[in-house]
Amino acid sequence: MEITLAQTAALTGGTILCGSPDSVLTGFAGLREASPGDLSFFANERYINDLRRTRASAVLVPEGFPAPPDSPTALIACPNASAAFAAVVHRFTPPPRAFQPGIHPAAAVDPTAQLDPAKVSVGPCAVIEAGAVIGDGSEIGPGAIIGTDARIGKDCRIFARATIYHRCILGDRVAIHSGAVIGADGYGYEFINGRHQKIDQVGIVQIDNDVEIGANTTIDRARFGRTWIGEGTKIDNLVMIAHNCVIGRHVIIVAQAGIAGSTRIADYTVVAAQVGIAGHLDIGGPGVTFTAKTGVTANIRTPGTYMGTPAQPMKEYQHQLVMVRRLHDLATRLKRLEQEK
Amino acid sequence: MEITLAQTAALTGGTILCGSPDSVLTGFAGLREASPGDLSFFANERYINDLRRTRASAVLVPEGFPAPPDSPTALIACPNASAAFAAVVHRFTPPPRAFQPGIHPAAAVDPTAQLDPAKVSVGPCAVIEAGAVIGDGSEIGPGAIIGTDARIGKDCRIFARATIYHRCILGDRVAIHSGAVIGADGYGYEFINGRHQKIDQVGIVQIDNDVEIGANTTIDRARFGRTWIGEGTKIDNLVMIAHNCVIGRHVIIVAQAGIAGSTRIADYTVVAAQVGIAGHLDIGGPGVTFTAKTGVTANIRTPGTYMGTPAQPMKEYQHQLVMVRRLHDLATRLKRLEQEK
Amino acid sequence: MEITLAQTAALTGGTILCGSPDSVLTGFAGLREASPGDLSFFANERYINDLRRTRASAVLVPEGFPAPPDSPTALIACPNASAAFAAVVHRFTPPPRAFQPGIHPAAAVDPTAQLDPAKVSVGPCAVIEAGAVIGDGSEIGPGAIIGTDARIGKDCRIFARATIYHRCILGDRVAIHSGAVIGADGYGYEFINGRHQKIDQVGIVQIDNDVEIGANTTIDRARFGRTWIGEGTKIDNLVMIAHNCVIGRHVIIVAQAGIAGSTRIADYTVVAAQVGIAGHLDIGGPGVTFTAKTGVTANIRTPGTYMGTPAQPMKEYQHQLVMVRRLHDLATRLKRLEQEK
Repeated sequence: MEITLAQTAALTGGTILCGSPDSVLTGFAGLREASPGDLSFFANERYINDLRRTRASAVLVPEGFPAPPDSPTALIACPNASAAFAAVVHRFTPPPRAFQPGIHPAAAVDPTAQLDPAKVSVGPCAVIEAGAVIGDGSEIGPGAIIGTDARIGKDCRIFARATIYHRCILGDRVAIHSGAVIGADGYGYEFINGRHQKIDQVGIVQIDNDVEIGANTTIDRARFGRTWIGEGTKIDNLVMIAHNCVIGRHVIIVAQAGIAGSTRIADYTVVAAQVGIAGHLDIGGPGVTFTAKTGVTANIRTPGTYMGTPAQPMKEYQHQLVMVRRLHDLATRLKRLEQEK
Repeated sequence: MEITLAQTAALTGGTILCGSPDSVLTGFAGLREASPGDLSFFANERYINDLRRTRASAVLVPEGFPAPPDSPTALIACPNASAAFAAVVHRFTPPPRAFQPGIHPAAAVDPTAQLDPAKVSVGPCAVIEAGAVIGDGSEIGPGAIIGTDARIGKDCRIFARATIYHRCILGDRVAIHSGAVIGADGYGYEFINGRHQKIDQVGIVQIDNDVEIGANTTIDRARFGRTWIGEGTKIDNLVMIAHNCVIGRHVIIVAQAGIAGSTRIADYTVVAAQVGIAGHLDIGGPGVTFTAKTGVTANIRTPGTYMGTPAQPMKEYQHQLVMVRRLHDLATRLKRLEQEK
Repeated sequence: MEITLAQTAALTGGTILCGSPDSVLTGFAGLREASPGDLSFFANERYINDLRRTRASAVLVPEGFPAPPDSPTALIACPNASAAFAAVVHRFTPPPRAFQPGIHPAAAVDPTAQLDPAKVSVGPCAVIEAGAVIGDGSEIGPGAIIGTDARIGKDCRIFARATIYHRCILGDRVAIHSGAVIGADGYGYEFINGRHQKIDQVGIVQIDNDVEIGANTTIDRARFGRTWIGEGTKIDNLVMIAHNCVIGRHVIIVAQAGIAGSTRIADYTVVAAQVGIAGHLDIGGPGVTFTAKTGVTANIRTPGTYMGTPAQPMKEYQHQLVMVRRLHDLATRLKRLEQEK
């Protein structure tokens, strides 16, 4: 990497607040880790002390940032400093491994699978079972398993040791990280004669375009029909999505959240980490955020931020927390009144 | 699938409430997704509107359901509509993949492993280590790992990329889903001289007949002796069961629940999603249910439903939630009394 | 195993409280499971009844334990009975599988990987990609994936089906259990034009000496720079550690805990099971314990035990729980006062 301050401003659509336009940047790093020559960024007020102490030569800052008159660090103001930094990083970072089409000799590809070895990459010890279809430009990582009759779209990245069970369907540009399991049986039993009898799970999982699914996340196949993940939705690691859920488009589901069976989550909902959502609900939508550890048990659709178990509007919940902390004081005052009677 | 309404009633032990006994059903689907010709089912009052709007030709409903006089949909009353539907689905659904005995040439089976290639199925890139024993009728999926001296019973299904560590023992008809890890070391250390020193984990995991274990669930081996999962118990995805736990028979453990070391859970307990159970407890039994997100810290054995952290009887806990919501009102009334003094 | 009581006392640094020094022990087991001839241990008061009823021939007990005059069981007092027992078990337990150097013919090792086949063990269906470096004495289990240019130190154990993504760095004597995923992309997006645009995750994960990481745990690579796990830290199963976290040395992180991005956890912190820790925090240190299910949202550094969401000092939190349980009583008394006015 070698880029002048002026070129950086041009690339990011930013404005130089201070620093020589001709100075040259040779790397990038976080504020704390940066060395002279590095570009860094400041997007979160928490890190103001890191900004003051950074050894970076230049920093991307938000628009409106008050540049100190004697700043030793060059500053460029950007509409979104984090996104601008990401753009510079993207520009100068080679892909982790170039796409190399071909089927590794240690892969096990069933002869009835449909894929073009000149346009698809299949890693060592990957398994592609009978009737599976892999779209052009897709990469099946080492040890990944593509089940019978599964269909993978174009330009997908199925990372090392992901499992796509039989008959599941993925759109284009879908990324499934290592260890994720797509399409295991839903958890369904009927209790008969003192035993839990398994209910057949004959549906599938359908994942639409541009979805990303994190490491070791599990998405169960439908009892019948489909468990469905909408376009552009991003799911973090160790998330559980149960059978027959319908997740809308551009939904965010952060790590270790769990969604019980048959629940529908509308477009643009934000589900934070370790949230639990009960089954058979119809929730969310643009502007609906469930904060970390929330337990959702009702059909919440009104925009707002929700906390607690059961989930309540954030302000109500926080007010209750404050009131609970005052309980000792309340009890003391009540006792005094009783004594003064 | 092709079955008349009368045949459906016979198969499910149900009674035709309305509809022509000779009408023919050609498929099955959920109420929302159904098309004409489909059989569906109605088992949860939440979905009454879906029932009213369904395009299904026939629906299984609970006994006592009040059939509207002009129902455009044929209705069959069943003692358990969901189970009845499952029976029909089971009848007409081919297994996802027929059991194909044989060892795939890309599997790695140690010559000292004991299995009958004519009666066992071993998928590509599966690994069976020295001394392991696989019972007849069992299927070892692609990429699954069976450790040294492990013993797998008859008619088991070890799905893609499950791991059974050395010396663990599985009964008959056990299903282990993709990515599950059975028998990793328990998490045990002694803190000596400022460092956590590992305690050897020399026990095993024993899993009895008819157990099903979900995707990416982990069950640790015992420090010594065994971590033990009783007959007929069903465990969902991403569950953690620590070393030396003893889980009874026909227990239900839903997704993302975690059970700390050496805890014993009695037969028929229901542990809902994201529950946490402390170590060294002796809990549960028929009629004991821990609802989602509950934190169990004491030896609860009395039948009932428990919530909260620490777990309390549901009614007490819900009453407390109501009282907390009234706190603002209480504080206001207290202030008024103080002012009126 | 064959060891006299006197030898056991010598090995554990303990003192015989009762029993014949020449009596011979032939095995070891927990108090409940022990048979005559077995050595067992008693370290937790909860199990006093198990001690009274045990069939073990000898038991390691804590110093100061009041030996009953007529004890049928030989007793040895040790400074740390559990650790002493572990030492005996370690002495008499063969490793689960002897280290066998060599590359299994069914492994896929890129010709540019650097490893000494005479000093490294690579299991069947393991994959070692281009440029990876494996230190002497390390074992790569069956089905494990070592990514491009990853570096594994000496005497590491990478268990079956663990994934180490490209460029990640492990120190010496690191253990990574089955299904763990080290170095998947961090969960980072910018919301632009109604879509979540992926931010490149170009950093790595660095894991220092003597770290152990549990089954199916995920540790994401840094956005840039490194996600860093310090020396001697022990992480349990199904834990999530997000991008750019810095975990100190000798930290304990129990099962299903989750730590959001860029948080720093100081040396010797204890994070119990199912804890959630928000992003961008600077927390912990010697004597700081977060109990199970705690939600940490602030920079807690003062030694102490913390509970609840948001995390509070244990005593405060427990006092609040008590007060909440008294709310019904408080409301009744308030009502009485109002009526008596």
